[in-house]
Amino acid sequence: MTTDATAPRALPREPRQDRSRATRRRLLEAAVDCLASAGWAGTTVAVVAERAGVSRGAAQHHFRTREELVTAAVEYGADVRMTQMRERLRALADRRLSTLEVLELLGEMYTSPLFRAALQLWVAASSDEALRAQAVPLETRVGREAHRLTVEALGADESVPGVRETVQATLDLMRGLGLADLLTDDSARRSRLLRQWAVTLDLALGEECRSPG
Amino acid sequence: MTTDATAPRALPREPRQDRSRATRRRLLEAAVDCLASAGWAGTTVAVVAERAGVSRGAAQHHFRTREELVTAAVEYGADVRMTQMRERLRALADRRLSTLEVLELLGEMYTSPLFRAALQLWVAASSDEALRAQAVPLETRVGREAHRLTVEALGADESVPGVRETVQATLDLMRGLGLADLLTDDSARRSRLLRQWAVTLDLALGEECRSPG
Repeated sequence: MTTDATAPRALPREPRQDRSRATRRRLLEAAVDCLASAGWAGTTVAVVAERAGVSRGAAQHHFRTREELVTAAVEYGADVRMTQMRERLRALADRRLSTLEVLELLGEMYTSPLFRAALQLWVAASSDEALRAQAVPLETRVGREAHRLTVEALGADESVPGVRETVQATLDLMRGLGLADLLTDDSARRSRLLRQWAVTLDLALGEECRSPG
Repeated sequence: MTTDATAPRALPREPRQDRSRATRRRLLEAAVDCLASAGWAGTTVAVVAERAGVSRGAAQHHFRTREELVTAAVEYGADVRMTQMRERLRALADRRLSTLEVLELLGEMYTSPLFRAALQLWVAASSDEALRAQAVPLETRVGREAHRLTVEALGADESVPGVRETVQATLDLMRGLGLADLLTDDSARRSRLLRQWAVTLDLALGEECRSPG
């Protein structure tokens, strides 16, 4: 009897929560695209709501300010990209990716709209104390996660001196490549550069720096 | 007689031109600082004029728009930084800098207010077609000059396959390190990373990739 009595009340709640989650996700995806194409100045809650096909009121129910929306969007975008990368690694569980394949995956991640969106957040936060307080923990968390993922993908052994710094440098290089792609299509140069970097990285990591894959 | 007649007319012009050049330089320096600390949104011709102690009218005589001022400021800043680096290299003409010393000089350049100012320009230009048309040739010229300077400082021989890409990667890494320093003081991590990068670079460039210094 209890089950019968609560079920009809509980049921309608579920779709409403689903709808709310779907609305939130649409807003976050629209915000990433909007930041990447229109920049910080062109990204307001109202503009993003319209792009997402969500009423302004509903958007403001989820995100009161542009700062809240942008921070949540960059976090969401980073989680999506890293989940995708983790899934690709899992799908290939039977073999290790080559160093060049890992670098190309990273290169895609750091030239995606997500990187452009994150760049807008970092640059805006560099001259806004309140925003910086939100952006720094996010950047730290995302940076750590990207590092862990790269170590895993490369099969690098961080207990060997110098390996940690070499992996970090690889990710800083990716950030630099993301910047270099901001104003012009840098893909041809990037492709040559990554091929060479794969050779150098194999040399730098060597066999003794690779964990048994 | 001709000399006597023209001299008094020519003379007063000289100081006026000097004053004009000095005013222009003050505006450009103030614009770099303003961009680095207050960002694109906080940098207008009026704000920069006040910071430089120049009247708004005089500032507008030199730069009609924020876009003109910012582009000129980034160009000026890049020229100053690269001239400084060239002078340091010349002062050490009797010995070659170690790879680590070169990387540390570059690291300073890419975490200076100039880099932050340039970053503001690039990010603003990424969603503004007119500004992009000004920023791209500037970025290309400055990028080439930085590349040439790095090749010279490292004594690298670009006729050896892979050397050009390795030097490019070093500069992309520097851009990434500049970004990583934007929100927090990254100097301790950068210092460890550059020490390791110097080892890797020495390995990658090897003796056969070094031009006789």
